[in-house]
This record gives sequence, structure tokens and C-alpha cells, in this order.
Amino acid sequence: MTGPAEVERTRVVVVGGGPAGLLLSHLLHTSGVEHVVLEARTREEIYRTTRAGILEASSVSTLVDAGLDRVLREGDRHDGIALRFDGESHRIDLHGLTGSAVWLYPQTEVFTDLADRAAQHGADVRWQATVTDVLDVRTGRPGVRWTDAEGRERELRCDVLVGADGSHSTCRHSLSEDVRRHYVHQYPYAWFGVIVEAPRSAPELVYTTSEHGFALISQRTETHQRLYFQCDPDEDPARWPDDRVWHELQRRVTGTDGFRLLEGPVTERSVLRFRSSVVEPVRHGRMLLAGDAAHTVPPTGAKGLNLALADVVVLHDVLSRWLSRTGGDDTVLDEYGRRVSDRVWRAQHFSAWMSRMLHSHPGESGFERGRRLAELRTLVASESGRRFLAEGYTGWGPVVTEGAM
Amino acid sequence: MTGPAEVERTRVVVVGGGPAGLLLSHLLHTSGVEHVVLEARTREEIYRTTRAGILEASSVSTLVDAGLDRVLREGDRHDGIALRFDGESHRIDLHGLTGSAVWLYPQTEVFTDLADRAAQHGADVRWQATVTDVLDVRTGRPGVRWTDAEGRERELRCDVLVGADGSHSTCRHSLSEDVRRHYVHQYPYAWFGVIVEAPRSAPELVYTTSEHGFALISQRTETHQRLYFQCDPDEDPARWPDDRVWHELQRRVTGTDGFRLLEGPVTERSVLRFRSSVVEPVRHGRMLLAGDAAHTVPPTGAKGLNLALADVVVLHDVLSRWLSRTGGDDTVLDEYGRRVSDRVWRAQHFSAWMSRMLHSHPGESGFERGRRLAELRTLVASESGRRFLAEGYTGWGPVVTEGAM
Repeated sequence: MTGPAEVERTRVVVVGGGPAGLLLSHLLHTSGVEHVVLEARTREEIYRTTRAGILEASSVSTLVDAGLDRVLREGDRHDGIALRFDGESHRIDLHGLTGSAVWLYPQTEVFTDLADRAAQHGADVRWQATVTDVLDVRTGRPGVRWTDAEGRERELRCDVLVGADGSHSTCRHSLSEDVRRHYVHQYPYAWFGVIVEAPRSAPELVYTTSEHGFALISQRTETHQRLYFQCDPDEDPARWPDDRVWHELQRRVTGTDGFRLLEGPVTERSVLRFRSSVVEPVRHGRMLLAGDAAHTVPPTGAKGLNLALADVVVLHDVLSRWLSRTGGDDTVLDEYGRRVSDRVWRAQHFSAWMSRMLHSHPGESGFERGRRLAELRTLVASESGRRFLAEGYTGWGPVVTEGAM
Repeated sequence: MTGPAEVERTRVVVVGGGPAGLLLSHLLHTSGVEHVVLEARTREEIYRTTRAGILEASSVSTLVDAGLDRVLREGDRHDGIALRFDGESHRIDLHGLTGSAVWLYPQTEVFTDLADRAAQHGADVRWQATVTDVLDVRTGRPGVRWTDAEGRERELRCDVLVGADGSHSTCRHSLSEDVRRHYVHQYPYAWFGVIVEAPRSAPELVYTTSEHGFALISQRTETHQRLYFQCDPDEDPARWPDDRVWHELQRRVTGTDGFRLLEGPVTERSVLRFRSSVVEPVRHGRMLLAGDAAHTVPPTGAKGLNLALADVVVLHDVLSRWLSRTGGDDTVLDEYGRRVSDRVWRAQHFSAWMSRMLHSHPGESGFERGRRLAELRTLVASESGRRFLAEGYTGWGPVVTEGAM
């Protein structure tokens, strides 16, 4: 007899076991709140996904506060970045200008730290758990229908459901279009990202714009580096043998100062599409969206992971107060959206600004190119301009965790 | 017998008797350089053209240095502007942030001061003098063919020719397209500008963006004010009776603070088109372009007149050194373009930035609107952001007048 799906119950269901979901799991554990994390992929699949690597100071604090201080030992603190144009690099002294810095620490390491911590806690994280339906979020007993690693259909009910399931979020897609606004912007360019086996060519990130387009010199380890260059969104990585990659990168970073990239074998290549999106509201009854499920940014500002972690810190603060009240008013949950919205939109602006200032739009007019270069020149020539950019890059200070209202 | 046109000779021919041309005439007079100014309109026609009214401190210095200090007595120094959005005004303390300020002093008053000064000098300014042809700029004997107020064809030869004849410049148009680059950007909106008989509604300029579009509250005198609102470039002023103008302005400036404009009869109405343009190079043989003939900006940044005066100060510096050398190398004249280019492009960026940040682009997406508001919020919340904007608004400090090379 095929009976109904097995139904379980917990207080919080977290859909998504990436950094956002696992950080929330950690914080809920700390608060003693029973919860389950459902993640469609295996831990190994997530680990193998190459992702961004810049953490704001407040993200580092969040990790350290969670007892995850490997970032301080193995991450690289970067006190500056460079903007490179007109064939010259102009350093933005992030630390000198703002007192803050960023850390180069790839997202996969953040994920590993959080996944290890969850395993130590004995957190109920279920890998290969595919959510197929979101249930009854407008009631006091929301939940999900999901399929486990063995293909069994199951059901999980809770007091509150958190959608931290990334940019293709099943949770977000469960909402009909008339209850959510989805603000989207597409860019006419993408990044060709490579990992190369080579020493560092520069000690800090170098954001370059040239007549051939954008390039970003980033770092990873002593032996492997992360580099990017602007490409067409439909570019095929297979069409880029190593020598073509290096030719393209070298000509974009070339300058009057004789700078050259240190070359080596290309060990990974992929195209990263650009998209800005914001969903509002982030609360729908007893379901709350966080991280990429709620908003995505182009990679230029390095804001995606930082926003996700900032969301979760605020979300946990709101959730734990709501959960501790018996018979509490659900509208308390709206505080989450109110508190994260400002940062989300600032990050949207910052990411779009950095993208537009540094990329050559296909078919860009001579005027627009001249204007962009004048913007860069005005910016780096002004201490206020440099500081304004540095404030954005380092994330506008700590994530505010207001006390109970 | 209709003989050949009468040919005269002078050292410098200045085409255009607006503020740029007349300032150059004043400076040449001071240096004892013989010159003639040719202006197609009458003095009264120019005076009746309502134009922008914000002077940077360096423009004020330029006028005062020329002995024209009425601006200090009759102009209004403005130490700040306001950016108004989300229904609230946010003051940018120009003086507190940069130590500099701007002066509200309409362009027609600048023109009057300069035209009076030229008359006192007995400067050779010829009104209703229409240049029909630009002659031989690649030779040592350039000139113009022109028609005088009586319709007589005449010819004027010189050592050097200056095109300060505005955005429709005959001098610029005389250049074939293969010797000049013309960078142009069109905007999908314009300003509906009115002069109203009413008291001041605000002590300083208020740049407003609302769901209904941009509006600018400006001032003129105790009894008359200058106001603007964003409109379609093809808007017909005749379709705007007073009550419609006031309804449109009031709904754009309305806010949570109860602010209302003080109303009165609309005495003048016109549509100001937006256009950004830069011509390069600004030297062609013995002809040099200055002011609107060389570049135009949208009015949002109030940079047009200021750029023109800054051009002329540098141009006079270069010209007088070149003229004082016998058998001097013409390439010395290239210094003019090199020295003004940075300011011109900065002003282009600043004007385009202010325009884009404050206007609602027709068909603007929800994302783009959200991004713009986030930009404004981030900017006014940051002292660095406010200062960066204030640096641009006040004109990045004095116009550099380098010594002889």
C-alpha cells in the first residue's frame, strides 16, 4: 500500500544548505531552536562549485562570532584594491580610508567551515533533499514536500520556513507573481572566469578597464590564481585554449608601467552571467527568503555572499525573538525585511555602479567611454571619492543588530 | 561695380559675443592684444535669452579678477543645495564640505557686466555680424567672411581665430568630420523651465526626484523664481497653462514634511533640451574652439557657463604667450586642449551623473528606480559621498593657470 508521505515536524525548516542556510542553522543551534536543513545537492557538489572570495569585515566578524576563525589564519586580509585604467593602477587604500578591510577567503571555505560545524553540532542537515512543493505558508503550519536521497517523498511541517535556496529558489518560485515584486536587471556582458596555476601577479585585487574591456586580477593561493575578463554572455569556454586566455588577459592589463601577468596552465574556465534582482517582500506569511533566493548581484562588487550572511544575522535576530514569544504577532516577522532592505539596495547600487564604471558596454559610444574614464579619474583623484568607493567595497560598517522593539 | 569684399586685419578674431567671447575680449584688452569680436545677434537678443544662473567660485574669481564685482553685491552666495527624494530634503553643505560655494547670478547678468566692460574699453565688438565662412585655418593667415548689420559682405583676417560661437558654432561646423571627433549623448528627457512671479520657496536650490520625475526649485530675485521640471523633449509649452504647471510642480516636490511651493503667475515658459557633446581636438591649425562651441552639458550640473569661462582663462594664458613669441611654434597652441580636457570631461561625467541619478528615464524599470534611490540614500548618508558630490558641484577648485612651459 502506498500511503501518504511520511510527515515530520520541526520548528524551523531551512531550505538550502549553502553558506546562508548553514549559518542560520548554526545560529538557531546556538539559540536552542530545533530545525532541519534541506539541501538538494551533496556536500561535495557544493564544495566543487567555484565561487566568489571576498568577505567584508562584518562577514568575517559573523564567522568569528560563530567560532569559525579559520578565516583569520588562512584567509588573506586585503587592505586595498586597485583600479586600473589609462594603463596605470590607482590604489584604493580601503583600510586607510575606512579603517576596515576585506578578506580573500573563497566561499567554498566558508561553506566547509559551516558544514563542519553543523556536523560537530549534530545538526539535522539533509543532503540530496529536493523540495518539490512549498505548503501552506499563509497558515500557522507551513511546510514542504520533499524527496530524499533514496527518492522517497516526504513532508516536513514547521512554525516558520526559510528559503535560503539560492538564485533559482524553489521557495521564491512557489509564490505567485501577484504577491511578489521581482526587480530584475540584465547586463549585456558576463565574466569569463579562470583558475590558473601560477604565482600571484599582484598582492591585491586589480579591477581593470581597457579599450578591450574589463579584467579582474584576483588571487587564491600561492600556486593558483583567479582571473576574470569581460566576455559575451553566450561565450563558450571550450573556444578558449590557454594561449587565447592569456593573450586576452595580457592585452587588457597592459599599461605604461610594464605590468604583465605571470602565466601558467588554465585549470578551470567558466562563464559567469551577470544579473541584478531583488524580490520584495521577503516575508510571505510564515516563509522568509534570504540570500540569493531574495536578491542577486553581479560579481563586480563582491557583495553576494556578504549580503547573504548579513541577511541571516538579521533574520536570526528577528526569528529568535518571534519564536520566544508565545502567541506572538506574525507581523513582528516583517521587521526582517525592513531591516535588510537598505543594505540590499545599497549593494545593488554599488554592484551596478562598479559594473557600469568598469565594463565597456557592447556598442558603447565614444561619449560614454569618455564619461566612464572621467568618472574613474575624478574618483581616484579625490580622497572623498576614494573613501566613498571604499565604504561601499568594505560594506558600510557592521550589520546592525538592533535590540528588541 | 560689385568688387571683392572689404578685407580688414586684426590679431585675434573672436567669433561669438556671449560670455566666453566677451571675457576673452576683456582679457585680450588687458594684455594689449588687438582683436575683433563678431556676434550674430544684437546685445538685446542675447540679454533676453534666459539662461542658467549658477557660478562656481572660480568663475566668480575670474569675474572679480576682471574688475567685475557686481556678482559679489547682487549675486546670492549659496553655501548648500538640497537633494530631495523619498519626500524629504537632504542638504549638501557645499561650504562645510569643501570650503567653497556657488553664486546664484544669472548668465544674462554676467553677459551684461562683460558687455558693459567691453563698451567702456571701446572694444571692437560688432553686433549683428554673421560669419558665413571660415577661411584658411591651416595657414598663417586665417580669417572669416562675414555679413554686417547692413548686409554687406566683409572679410576679416587675423593671426588666430577663436570660435566661441555657441552650441551651433559656425566655426565648428566649418571643420570636416574627418578632422574632428564629436562625442554626443542625447537624453530621453528635457526640462520644462518657468519663471514665476512668486516669493522664494526655498533659500537654496532643491534638486528633487519623485515618482512623477525630476523638479528643480531655483531662485532668481525676491519677486521672481526659476523652476524646472522634467518633461518630454517634444513637450509644447503652449499646452501648459499656469494651473497645470503648478499642479505638476507641487506633486513632484510634495513630501512627508508638508513642503509646498509658493505659487504665482507663470511669466515665462520654455523647453530646454538635454545634450552632452565634446569636440576634439579644440585646436585646428590657427582656429581654437571654446565654451559651448567645443562642448555642451545638460543643465543638471550647472556646468555650461562655468566650463566656458574656465576655457577662456586657459585659452588667454596660452594665446598671450604664443602671441608674444615671434616666430613661435604653433604646437604651443595645443597646450590649450591638453589643459582644458580634464575639466571638460569631469564636467561631462558630473552632468551626466546628476542627470541620471535625478531623472526618471522614460520606461525606467523598477530595478533601475530602486537602484537610483539607493544611490541617493547611500550618497547623502555618507560624508564622503556628500563631499564627492560637493566637490563636483563647486567645480573641483580653481582653474589652474600654469606658468609658461
